[in-house]
Order: sequence, then structure tokens, then C-alpha cells
Amino acid sequence: MRELDAPARDVLAAQAIELPSWAFGNAGTRFKVFSTPGTPRTIQEKLSDAAQVHRLTGLAPTVALHIPWDLVSDYGELARYAQDLGVRLGTINSNTFQDDDYKLGSLTHTDERIRRKAIDHHLACVDVMDATGSQDLKIWLPDGTNYPGQGDIRGRQDRLADSLAQIYARLSDQQRLVLEYKIFEPYFYTMDVPDWGTSYAHVTALGERAFVCLDTGHHAPSTNIEFIVAQLLRLGRLGSFDFNSRFYADDDLIVGAADPFQLFRILFEVLRGGGFEAGSPVRFMLDQCHNIEDKIPGQIRSVLNVQEMTARALLVDQEALRAAQDAGDVLSANGLLMDAFYTDVRPALAGWREERGLPADPMAAYAASGYQRRIADERVGGTQSGWGA
Amino acid sequence: MRELDAPARDVLAAQAIELPSWAFGNAGTRFKVFSTPGTPRTIQEKLSDAAQVHRLTGLAPTVALHIPWDLVSDYGELARYAQDLGVRLGTINSNTFQDDDYKLGSLTHTDERIRRKAIDHHLACVDVMDATGSQDLKIWLPDGTNYPGQGDIRGRQDRLADSLAQIYARLSDQQRLVLEYKIFEPYFYTMDVPDWGTSYAHVTALGERAFVCLDTGHHAPSTNIEFIVAQLLRLGRLGSFDFNSRFYADDDLIVGAADPFQLFRILFEVLRGGGFEAGSPVRFMLDQCHNIEDKIPGQIRSVLNVQEMTARALLVDQEALRAAQDAGDVLSANGLLMDAFYTDVRPALAGWREERGLPADPMAAYAASGYQRRIADERVGGTQSGWGA
Amino acid sequence: MRELDAPARDVLAAQAIELPSWAFGNAGTRFKVFSTPGTPRTIQEKLSDAAQVHRLTGLAPTVALHIPWDLVSDYGELARYAQDLGVRLGTINSNTFQDDDYKLGSLTHTDERIRRKAIDHHLACVDVMDATGSQDLKIWLPDGTNYPGQGDIRGRQDRLADSLAQIYARLSDQQRLVLEYKIFEPYFYTMDVPDWGTSYAHVTALGERAFVCLDTGHHAPSTNIEFIVAQLLRLGRLGSFDFNSRFYADDDLIVGAADPFQLFRILFEVLRGGGFEAGSPVRFMLDQCHNIEDKIPGQIRSVLNVQEMTARALLVDQEALRAAQDAGDVLSANGLLMDAFYTDVRPALAGWREERGLPADPMAAYAASGYQRRIADERVGGTQSGWGA
Amino acid sequence: MRELDAPARDVLAAQAIELPSWAFGNAGTRFKVFSTPGTPRTIQEKLSDAAQVHRLTGLAPTVALHIPWDLVSDYGELARYAQDLGVRLGTINSNTFQDDDYKLGSLTHTDERIRRKAIDHHLACVDVMDATGSQDLKIWLPDGTNYPGQGDIRGRQDRLADSLAQIYARLSDQQRLVLEYKIFEPYFYTMDVPDWGTSYAHVTALGERAFVCLDTGHHAPSTNIEFIVAQLLRLGRLGSFDFNSRFYADDDLIVGAADPFQLFRILFEVLRGGGFEAGSPVRFMLDQCHNIEDKIPGQIRSVLNVQEMTARALLVDQEALRAAQDAGDVLSANGLLMDAFYTDVRPALAGWREERGLPADPMAAYAASGYQRRIADERVGGTQSGWGA
Repeated sequence: MRELDAPARDVLAAQAIELPSWAFGNAGTRFKVFSTPGTPRTIQEKLSDAAQVHRLTGLAPTVALHIPWDLVSDYGELARYAQDLGVRLGTINSNTFQDDDYKLGSLTHTDERIRRKAIDHHLACVDVMDATGSQDLKIWLPDGTNYPGQGDIRGRQDRLADSLAQIYARLSDQQRLVLEYKIFEPYFYTMDVPDWGTSYAHVTALGERAFVCLDTGHHAPSTNIEFIVAQLLRLGRLGSFDFNSRFYADDDLIVGAADPFQLFRILFEVLRGGGFEAGSPVRFMLDQCHNIEDKIPGQIRSVLNVQEMTARALLVDQEALRAAQDAGDVLSANGLLMDAFYTDVRPALAGWREERGLPADPMAAYAASGYQRRIADERVGGTQSGWGA
Repeated sequence: MRELDAPARDVLAAQAIELPSWAFGNAGTRFKVFSTPGTPRTIQEKLSDAAQVHRLTGLAPTVALHIPWDLVSDYGELARYAQDLGVRLGTINSNTFQDDDYKLGSLTHTDERIRRKAIDHHLACVDVMDATGSQDLKIWLPDGTNYPGQGDIRGRQDRLADSLAQIYARLSDQQRLVLEYKIFEPYFYTMDVPDWGTSYAHVTALGERAFVCLDTGHHAPSTNIEFIVAQLLRLGRLGSFDFNSRFYADDDLIVGAADPFQLFRILFEVLRGGGFEAGSPVRFMLDQCHNIEDKIPGQIRSVLNVQEMTARALLVDQEALRAAQDAGDVLSANGLLMDAFYTDVRPALAGWREERGLPADPMAAYAASGYQRRIADERVGGTQSGWGA
Repeated sequence: MRELDAPARDVLAAQAIELPSWAFGNAGTRFKVFSTPGTPRTIQEKLSDAAQVHRLTGLAPTVALHIPWDLVSDYGELARYAQDLGVRLGTINSNTFQDDDYKLGSLTHTDERIRRKAIDHHLACVDVMDATGSQDLKIWLPDGTNYPGQGDIRGRQDRLADSLAQIYARLSDQQRLVLEYKIFEPYFYTMDVPDWGTSYAHVTALGERAFVCLDTGHHAPSTNIEFIVAQLLRLGRLGSFDFNSRFYADDDLIVGAADPFQLFRILFEVLRGGGFEAGSPVRFMLDQCHNIEDKIPGQIRSVLNVQEMTARALLVDQEALRAAQDAGDVLSANGLLMDAFYTDVRPALAGWREERGLPADPMAAYAASGYQRRIADERVGGTQSGWGA
Repeated sequence: MRELDAPARDVLAAQAIELPSWAFGNAGTRFKVFSTPGTPRTIQEKLSDAAQVHRLTGLAPTVALHIPWDLVSDYGELARYAQDLGVRLGTINSNTFQDDDYKLGSLTHTDERIRRKAIDHHLACVDVMDATGSQDLKIWLPDGTNYPGQGDIRGRQDRLADSLAQIYARLSDQQRLVLEYKIFEPYFYTMDVPDWGTSYAHVTALGERAFVCLDTGHHAPSTNIEFIVAQLLRLGRLGSFDFNSRFYADDDLIVGAADPFQLFRILFEVLRGGGFEAGSPVRFMLDQCHNIEDKIPGQIRSVLNVQEMTARALLVDQEALRAAQDAGDVLSANGLLMDAFYTDVRPALAGWREERGLPADPMAAYAASGYQRRIADERVGGTQSGWGA
């Protein structure tokens, strides 16, 4: 295979993909959440599982928390616990979709009491950030409506803008607000932040430390996601990714599983737009639901997929590509991109891992480690973590 | 408004829309199932709620059961209970999506023990049909896979065909098997019965008493549903409808709420294809989730919407339409259809109801009845019904 | 029916829907453009046809021009010609999709010669505006790519921004630039202005007289268009509509034909957001292709559909709606909207027309006028207008 | 890389992908058909171009004809002409979308004269088949409607069934009828053969020599195409493929360009279902539009993509896959598939070509051949071929 040059190896060396604590808990559909032996009952057990992913791949040094799922009384202690496992606490995610009060909205609610409660929840999340040293408050706003007429679209936007401003004002100079968008679910007629345009309009109104979060599963069919990546990088407002993959809706499958070529194209635009450069505002995270597959190897597979596609993107001969583009040579330009995509980078990345004392094959190493059997044996009793706990 | 003529009034007089028992329980998304005061705890309470819908609209004389959600020890007793409320038991729906055994499949499973269990569940459903006198066994098969390679698509079809044959063989001459299709959810890569073609291929292989069930929310975006209605009627294999509406995926909203014109077009094709004629094999059912709205008025609104759009379809001047179609007069033909759609049939239907001793405005009558307050007060304690119970 | 009150009647009295000159020419698909007797050969004949629409409906006082399709040597003369027919010249639309030079781009092209040519074409369009007194330069940018790697997404955005700035600088203080977006076609991998977010980012960078144009057929499946309407009105950047309807892609069918309820919801948000108020920046236009139906009655039907849905939107009891929304009464709020939608406004609008000396039934009046037969007889020889002429 | 074993090499040795004559002509969108120097003016020149593809790849021994685009007076002579170039004439494609008579339908038309004309056109196509020895009559039926009510969906199906029966009756025992389906375009409300279920219902009604043609660009968004492949193979009715790729609609891009992983999955199901076995009824064809790229290398790239993905599919360890599937090991089963997909087969296929005296890199060999310059120089004057000629 072509060689990864020094700048490419620097990108790979610096690559870090944040794991979501909730990926280690049970997940499912509205029809059923299947449980699995060994599923964590506590945030400490989630961190332990996440640490396995980092230990075997060297790619996942931080773990995102979801509040209130991962509420603890002492975050300093939790941070130290994580540190002993070899990982750090990362992004703080708020949650306004599981309290009966939020049935018809949270940051957009017409009832000032409920809206206040939702704002206060976010302020409490910033308290957690202060305690953990997390940089990002990520807001995925689940608010929306199911029926035409149910809510006043405009009024909801105005209240949202006010709520966000109150939250943003609470942040320190080192902290950022990252606003995620999603086309549908859990509501079916309107979502209050359905597209990147809406998120962009809100974050530019807030200030310089507000950014857009792009979840790769949150778009309409046929949306060109890498275009949005390129555009948000150009506008300086791409704050973070939630990686996963989808065939239909927000399937939350392993990233790269549904359309590996799309993942490659996205990472190529990240590279092209400076998103891998030092000082870039872009953060990388997974957001997935391992409904039927084992969770820890599901996460290992995911971070490896991001790494493999990053390596392929790094193999694109950008100089030749630019020349072919400028010459209007459609087939050559496309061919240069495809050549990198079709190159098998796995042997080189196995070597890369071995150089760092990591296992050449992290999936096999995990299977051989006995960890899965151990947690299945040990984690008996208690309540398995899931989206509700 | 134009008058509904005698044949049209006969169609309206004969119209019956089956209610799903589960519509009265709690429903939601994978993110949250909100609970509501007054939600039934038992099948008896569900029947009581369903009876309200029929009492006020005259449109919903039967209630479909879901097994095992609606399991009772004595179905004869349950049938009498229903009869006392003024309704009857209808279609029996099987359920193979909530047992941990079915995580990777039921009627398609590679493990013969699990596949046997799933077949036996359906045989037990036929036992219930024998006890209740239900005519239809409706199978919505949730089986599918999430990842390419996970399952052998072909092998799963072959096992499905064998399982269905075993179930079909158990039916009496008065009983029917109705096979529903769905493009995705709860699985995201393949569903084993994803489209009408697959359902049609299976039911024609089974025999004359096997039919296709069309759920209006189970198609890919942009699918022309009324075409499928017309085609299945032509092929003699349209067995039943599950009515609901959607903006994005299988939203399960109130029928007619998202696209009333589509509902009109569907009902026009039912009429055109003989689906309202005596002896037609077509049955009409709702299948909805009232995630945020009150359930009983949600069902009342739904059956009224079906009736209103049926009345509009009945207003189409079919003779003139045929003439315009034959003449290639595109705008006139379209105009004739639109004229019926835009006609406000609500006053005529209010009159129709009053002639039958029903309230002119069933929504208002329900609100005034005090029933909602009464069940909220009375149904305290116990476990509210939902998809899991 | 409920009465249209005085403010509602004022909205209707002021309503104006611009007709596209090209709607009167032949249109089709890549497979075939069918021709029709009577199709105009010149812009003068197009204006004559457009004048019929206005004469019979009172709704369409202006006609948009497409350059170079509607190039003439003397626009002052053309304006007077229009005036004699009872209409005025409206928006000027540029065209960069029919010159071989633009195969790989126009305002985004890597070749400075071609990009210059495309910019100059727009400057020439502003010359036309100066001559006709048109207020709006509407840019639908057809640029895009078909294959990944073919073009540099970021570089194309940067060149687009520069091109637009040069064009914007040429406008007078009374003129506006309106930038239309479209998800796909004529290119299939990327479009350079694919979504409202991109258009919004560009127009805010340009200045206060730059706005977004929303074509109702230019979105991904399942996109909530009325949300975008509400959002752009809130942001003060909704400049104009291109109305049409679609079942699949950019079908360019008669507005309201595919989903009349969606048209109603869009117009309700226009009303809610102040888009019908005096001084609003919002302009209303049709953009349709009458591939198989007669063109003049196709346009008549279209403007009537917009009027009828506007009237329905005006019937919404906004005070009651707001109360139901604030009370969280989902079904009542939805019911209030649906009540207006289901009200048959056609008799009232027929009366409204008769008060103004217009025919009660414009479709019938056109059919009875003999105009269609006359133009079929008279317009013999020459080249029928189409997208290429 | 893993080795392609002997059975795999047999599949590759037997692989044949038919080229569409029209791919060498100009194509475009409704907005513009760009012309290119060197575009063929005659079927003879198209055959010459097609022969280049086969000469360099060894994969494309036959060329499909489109009637009347490729009408000649003596097909025996044309067949000899092709033979001298090293290729053979293949499938005959009918065309009922370019005559003004067919504006509202052809095989489904209400006017018996027009329907007769369309049937007769197909009978004439069989005459051509008799003369050329072509085995397949491929019918892509463009018929449909644009507006609800415009046509009687049911009546159109009945007329279609009758028309197809008349055509089928004309075929010899060695000839087949292959019926293609398409969700939309050139009509937007209904297509008369919109989905595989409709095509399947018609071909099973016709007889054993009627099959379904699957065009990979003719489905709704999110449709799982490989499932349809597996199902049609199981039902014994998959007759042929039209390969191309798409991001949005029927984009007709180079096969594998938009989603190479999907192409791999499709070819894996072909293999799994016996579609590559001797005696299989499945034929492989391209159907593409090279709107902006050079046509001959566009076709070379396409057949190479099919070959490369076939080779990857052949690398799947089917025994291990079956074991993982049976064991319910989701991640291992998926991993086995992905391992084959990620393997770079290009060096092995270059060697495979060299063994056969073919150029290792057909794209480079074509560029070096001077053929493109030669045809650009020689083909001056005349009318370039396109969809209309």
C-alpha cells in the first residue's frame, strides 16, 4: 500500500474519539430493549468498559457523561476514578426528554415553570462541567410537536433563543455550548432544532463559543452530510461530531457500518477543512446504540472504523486531486479519491498499533482478554444501565 | 354540499373500523413513554374505553387483541364482557418482539427451538381465535437484522415460508392469515417482510385464505400507497388495513393527520376496487400510538377522519371522472377528484349521526361526558398498560 | 362557512402571485418534451397568455422573466406591451445552466474566464432590471458536481461568495438579490447551494438586501417546509417563494396538487410570521412545468389554489389556537387548524370574485373564452418556447 | 491479499456485462444535454466505442440496442459489423416514451389505437430479436400519470396485462420478456410498473419466460436492494440487472460511484442466490448516463467496478459466515463480510488481466490509446446520438 507520510502519521497520533458512557448500557427500540449479561449498573462500571476500548486501541481517551444518567455526588472522585483507569471525563450532555414535565417541550415550553426547570437543568450541567473540567456542554434538544397546530413554531424558536442565551451566559471563557440538530424523533411533525441552518442561526446569535454538533444520523434521506461538514468548517462553527450510521432513520448503528464510503468522504472533508489541525474547534464523538451486538467490541469496532477511514482520507493525493479538479478532469479526480478509499490500510494500522505497544488486532485481543466473561459473572443483581438510568 | 346518494349512504351505514386494544395503553418512543392518568390497567378497561368510541361514533364495533398483552384465562367471558359494553372482539395479533429469545429472529430464527416457540405462539393465538370467534390472525413479523452479513437473507425467507405454512395449516376454513409488511424498525438493515411484494409472494404460496395487511406507515418515503391498494385489490389479496399517518417513519399518528389528501386517495381506491362492497375481503383497522394526546379522543378523531374521507371519496362523480380520463383531459379529471376532496362533508355527517341517535359532535360529546375525569379518578394504582403489558 | 373578516379580506385583496414566463412554454423531462398547439413562440405571446390568468383571477399582476430566454432589445417597449395587456414585468431570473461553458460550474467555476462570464451575465441581468424597473434578481444556481472528488466543495463555496459579492455590489438601493437553494438536479452528488442554511449564510454575508428564495420542491423527502418558512421569517431573510408541488423530486407540478394540506400549513406560517403584512419582504411566485396539461388553465388552477389555501389559513381562529397551544391541549389545537383546512372556501371566493367583476369560476370562464382555440389556430410556424428558448 | 480460489476464478472468467448502446451517446438532464467531441452519430460508431471497452477489459462482449434509436435496415449486417469489432448484439430495448402519441400512456393507454401502436412497436422489436438472435426483450414501461385522478390506476393495470400478454405470445421458446420497474420519472404521481411486486405479479401471470429487471436506481430512498435481489432469485424471477448508481433519484451515475458497499452487497446476494452459476437466468447490464464525464472511460470504469465488487464478494468466507450467522455472532458475521469488502482486489485483478493479454490498467491503456482524440477528430458533422436519436 501507499505509505502514510509524516503529517498523516501526526494526524493519526493525535486522533481522539470520545466514547459515550451510555453506549455501554442497554439500548433498543420502542418495541423492546434487550438486556445482556455484564451490562454496567453504574457510571463506574461504564468507565471501566470504556477504558477497555482505549486500552486496546489507543483512540478513546475520554468518556462523555449524560446528566442525570451519570449523576454522582462527587465528580472529583469520579475524575480520579477515570484517571486510574486511564481515561478522562469529557463532554457533558444534558437530558430533557425523560421527565414527564417535558412531554410538550423543555427549553421551548410555554409554561414558564417548566422552561425554567429545563434551563436550571442546564445550569446544573455547567456545575458538573466546572467540577470535571469538561469543556463542552452538548445540548441535543428533543423538543418538538407531533401535530400541525399543536405548537406555535415561531414562539417556540423565540423561547429557545432566550433559554439558550441564559445558559450560554453561565459558561466560563473556557467552556463551549454545542447545539445538536435532528430532523425527527422523538417528535414527528416539528423538531425545534431540525437542521444545521437552525443550529447555526442560534449559535451565531449566542457568541463565539457556541458551535454546531453534527450527528451523522440526524438528516433527511439523501442529505449530503460532507457538504454540511465542509460548510460548517468554512463558517467556523463545526464544534463536534456524533458518529454513527444509518440505513433509514436515526438507526445509531456502528459508525461506518451502513455506508463506509460516506464516512470516508466526511473525514476527507474534515481533513480538507482543517478539522484535524491543532487548534481546530472540532471534537469527535461516537453516539450509538448497540441494540443487539456486544457493546464493548461494538465500540472498539467503531473507533477502528473512524481511524481506518481517516487513514484512507490521509492517503488522498491532494495535490494531484486539486490539479485534476482544476483541469475539469472528472474521472481522474474521482479516481484519485476512490484509489485512497479502496486502499487497504488495515495492515499499516496494525503496524501502527504494534509500534505503540497496542495489540495488532484489538477485536481479537478483546475476545481473548476474558473481560466479557468476567463482567458477565461479576455484574449480577442491581439494575442494568439503559437510557432510563 | 353535494348529496350523498343512496349507494353512498349504504357504504357509510356498513362502515366499521376496528380499534386496537393497545391504542388505549401508553405508547412512546425509545426515548420515553409518557404515562397519563386514566390509562387502562387491564384488557377489560381497554374494552371499556373502546366502547366509548363506538358509543359516540357508531363506527367502531370491534376491538383487536394483542397476544400476550391481552391474555386472559377465559375468552368466552371476555367476549361477553365486550358484548355488554356494545362491542365485539376482533382480530388476534401475535407478538414475537418482546421475548429475549427473539432478539435475532422468531419465525425466521436459525435456532429450531426458538423458531418452534414462535410457531407455537401463533398456534396458541389460533386457539384464542377459536375461543373468541375471531376471523383474522394478523402477523406483523418484527424479524430482521441490523448489520450486513448478520443473517442469511435467503435462509431467513425459507424458514419464514416453512413457519407460515405450519401456522396456516392450523387455521379453520373460516379463519384467515393476514401478513403485514414493514420497511424498517425494529431492525435497520433488513426486515424479513419489508414490502408488499414479499408479503404477496408468501400469501399466494400459502393459499386462498392468506392475505396482505397494509399499514399506511410502513413504506419508504415517496411510496404511492394508493397504487398498492389498487394493485392488491386487483390481485384479490388485500386483507386489511392498519391506518395511521406519518411525516417521517412509522410515526403512528392519528390517521389523516399528516396527509389527509393521501387518506382520501387511498379510500377512493378502496371504493374503486370494490373494497367497500359486501363480500369484500378487506377489513379496516387503526394502529396508532397516542404518545402525547389523550387516547380516547385520539381514537374518536381517527375513526371520524376515516369516515369523512370515505364520504368525500363517495362524492366523486365516477362517471364524469371516467369520461375525463378516457378523453385525456388531465385537468378536468384531477379537478373532479379535488372537488370531492374539498367538499366539506362534516355537516352532512353530523346529520347522519343525529339520524342514528348519535351525537352530532362526538369530540364535544366525549369531552362533556365526564368519562375522562372518571377514569382518571378511578384508575389509581396497578400498572398502566403499554406495549410491554 | 365561517366568514372571512375584514383583515382577512384585506389580505386577499392585496394578494399577488407572480407568474413565470416559462410556465407558458413547453416543459418536460429528460425523456421527452411534448409540444402543444398554441404554445407561445415569443415573450410577447407568453405575456399575452399570462394576462389571461390575471384577467380571470385578479391574482397575477406580474410576470417574471428568464434571461436569456426572454431577451429583447427594448425592455421599455416590452414593459409597455405588458402594461397594455394589464400586467407588469417582475423578477429577473438569471440562467447559467444552458451554455456549454457551464458544464462544470458557473459562479463557482475554477476557470476564471468562465466564472467572469457568469458574473457578467448577472450584471447584464441587473441592466435588464434597471430597464424594466424589476426589484428582484433571482439566482437559482445550478452549479454542482456528480462524483465525489470531482470538485473541491470548499473552494467552490469561496468562489461563490466572491461572485455573489460582485453581483450584489452592482445592485441599486432599490434592488434585491434573492438566492434560491435546491438539494439536487441538475447535479447529483453536490449542489453548491443545496439547503436554506447555505443560502442564509451567503445572504447574511452579502448585506441587508439579500434574501433567501424558497422553492417548495427543492427539499429532501420529509423536510418540514413550513418550519423553514417560519424560521426565515423570524430571521428576516425570506425573500420569495417559488410555488409548485411534488410527490418525489422537483416534480414542478401545480401548486397544491400533491399535498394541499402542506400548502395550507405553509401559508398559515406566512400569515403567522407577518409575511402578508404590508412592508413584508416576501414575494410570491409560481415555478411549475405543465408537462402534460394545458398551460394557461394549469396556471389559473395554481393561483386559485394559493388563494384558496390562503383563505383557509385566514380562517384559523388564532386566538383560540394560541389558548389551546398554551394550555397544552394537543387535540384542540390541531382541531382548530384542521377545522379551517376542512372548511370549503370556494363559494366565498366565488363571491369575492364576482364582487370584483371577475368570473365566479375562472376555469370554466377560460374554457368558454375560446382563447385556447384561437392561439392554437394562430400560433402556427416558428419555434415553440421551451426551456431552451 | 487473500487468494481467489478456483471456483472464484471461474466466476470471474465467465463474467459478462452488457453495455447499453445509448451510454455512448449524449445524455443529460431536463435542463441541458451537453455535447462532447467524438460522440457517435450512428449505431456503428456506438458499437466501435463499446468494442473499446471490451478490448481493454474482457468484460463486455455484448451491446444492447434501443429501438428505434438503433434502427437499421439490415440487422444481419449489423451483427456481422459487431462481430468484426469483437462484440455481439444483445438485449433489445423498446421505447414508448418519445412519440407524442404516448404523452398519456402506451401499453396502458385508454385509446385503443395508441395502445395497439405500442403493442405493435414491441412486436417489431421481436422481429429485430429474430434478426439479431437477441434473447431478451426488455420493457421499461415509462407509462404513468402526473395528477391524482388523471388516470384509472386499476384500468391501466388491466390494459397493461392484456398488452403484455399479446407481446409475450409473440416470443419464441428461446426468447424472454424482461419487465423493468421504476418508482418515478418520467411521471410523478403514478408509474404503472413502480415496484418489483408489480413487475413480479405481471411476469408470473405471463409465463415461465417472463422475468423481472432490476435497475439499481429505480427505488425509493432507503430501499434495501439486495433484499429484492435475494427474494427474486429465490422466486426464480430475476431476469436481469440494469446497473448504475444514485445519490438522490435515478441519477444514472457510474455503477459503484455513489455507494460501493451497496454494490458489493448486491453482488454478494447474486452469488449467494446462485446468480453466477451456469444456467442462471440472470443477465448483467449497465444503464448509465455520462452527462459530464467521458463516455468510453465512464463505461470502462463501470465494468471494472462490477468486476472488483464481484471479486470482493467471492472473497467472503461463506462457511465461516454461515457458522457465525448460525451462532448469532452479529459482530463476527458482519466482520467477515466487511473483511472481504475492505480487501484490495485491484492488484489481483490486474494480474488476472495480464494473464489474459489484457492491459493491467484499462483506464490508463485507454487514455494512452489515442482513441478518444481520433474519434474527436474524425466524427465531425452529422448529428450526435442522444436519447432522441
